[in-house]
Amino acid sequence: MHNKQVLVEVCFSPRQFELYKEQFDICVVIDVLRATSAICAGIENGVNSIIPVATIEEAQALQKKGYIAAAERNGEIVEGFDFGNSPYAFMDPSLKGKDVVLSTTNGTQAVHTARDMETVVIGSLNNLEALSKWLIEQGKPVLLLASGWKNKFNLEDTICAGAIVDALLESRKFKSEEDSSIAAKFIYRSAKENIFSFLKASSHRRRLRRLNLNEDVKFCLTPNNNRCIPVLKDGAIVKLVHEEIAQD
Amino acid sequence: MHNKQVLVEVCFSPRQFELYKEQFDICVVIDVLRATSAICAGIENGVNSIIPVATIEEAQALQKKGYIAAAERNGEIVEGFDFGNSPYAFMDPSLKGKDVVLSTTNGTQAVHTARDMETVVIGSLNNLEALSKWLIEQGKPVLLLASGWKNKFNLEDTICAGAIVDALLESRKFKSEEDSSIAAKFIYRSAKENIFSFLKASSHRRRLRRLNLNEDVKFCLTPNNNRCIPVLKDGAIVKLVHEEIAQD
Repeated sequence: MHNKQVLVEVCFSPRQFELYKEQFDICVVIDVLRATSAICAGIENGVNSIIPVATIEEAQALQKKGYIAAAERNGEIVEGFDFGNSPYAFMDPSLKGKDVVLSTTNGTQAVHTARDMETVVIGSLNNLEALSKWLIEQGKPVLLLASGWKNKFNLEDTICAGAIVDALLESRKFKSEEDSSIAAKFIYRSAKENIFSFLKASSHRRRLRRLNLNEDVKFCLTPNNNRCIPVLKDGAIVKLVHEEIAQD
Repeated sequence: MHNKQVLVEVCFSPRQFELYKEQFDICVVIDVLRATSAICAGIENGVNSIIPVATIEEAQALQKKGYIAAAERNGEIVEGFDFGNSPYAFMDPSLKGKDVVLSTTNGTQAVHTARDMETVVIGSLNNLEALSKWLIEQGKPVLLLASGWKNKFNLEDTICAGAIVDALLESRKFKSEEDSSIAAKFIYRSAKENIFSFLKASSHRRRLRRLNLNEDVKFCLTPNNNRCIPVLKDGAIVKLVHEEIAQD
């Protein structure tokens, strides 16, 4: 046994967060379809900061103050907002250097839930490898918080969490004790050869297919098209300084 | 599509029950290690009724009134009680015809959580086939409530729930829409050839192994050693009358 191994565990839903949070320094918030994929895309492509807010009312208030604001509920752009949580929208060159307010059905709520943790970073399949490498370097206990769907378990966030568990356990610096972590890793290993196909029955993919969002889904399910680690600082999500140094 | 298909879904924890409960007539409470396995064993072997209570205090109060009382917390028999939740204890011939009070860490809490549903029945791997057959005959929406471990997800209850989902979907009279149900069925199908081995890493099995309860675990993980369907009636768990008729 490695006595110095630290914990990496998976929490399936923000509603379960209170039961898991005590032992962890770092919380990774995951909402693969599509909030955290969009945040990674935006920060990687030069958006200065993304301000996550839980309610539409908060987003509207900041919009009135002059912020660019994005809002999504149930997969659709909320009326009166510039865009929703499509990663392609966040890659628009006109957003470079800007601060963008974002409110979504699940992901920004999950960030809100995790906000008091020592460190909150944003995870997706897109930044899987870069994030896992950084987490291993930190060597601190990690809680992976799946945003789920309206506080229920979902498959795509579980697969992403399982992928991070798998990478961290392989470093031998981490251990998992919760059954949720064992299950997430198992589901990821079963799905990893073709995540798109594995998810074809999932409830949220069906929802997005009805909304003609298959291009977004393909983008969000592509591992490692992004090296960025977004981190929550004073209520806004910004690029982790560590990454900037590493890239210089 | 079969328009008359009814829902069968899985809820991973009593804490998530409120999010799932609305659409269902029948709730199956599952606590494989060991409360619902012990309840099935007791009712099958002639215990007249098992009265599930949430707290140790309630169990003590009923014990003072003369009831036989059993209580378990964290895998161990609570001091002052006759026994805990070992299925073997519930098969003791001296319990035939008796009413037994039971309080456990997870299972009796889950029964308490589900108590306002139209019908609450008790599920385990032991009565898997008999229960699935009966659920298919009813043709009503079924919610499978995993008791979990202290409101967290656990593997053994998920596997049992997945087995019931699998059987009900195969009848083609049922459908599942939640990702939790898809995941439970997937995990069951991966585990079913050797559930004991699949669970070797699970957190609760480790806990029971430390307590030298491997014989109990083997019993609880044996599918279909029992044809009984325990049902909640007026606060006590009794044998379903339907079963008695079917056996005559």
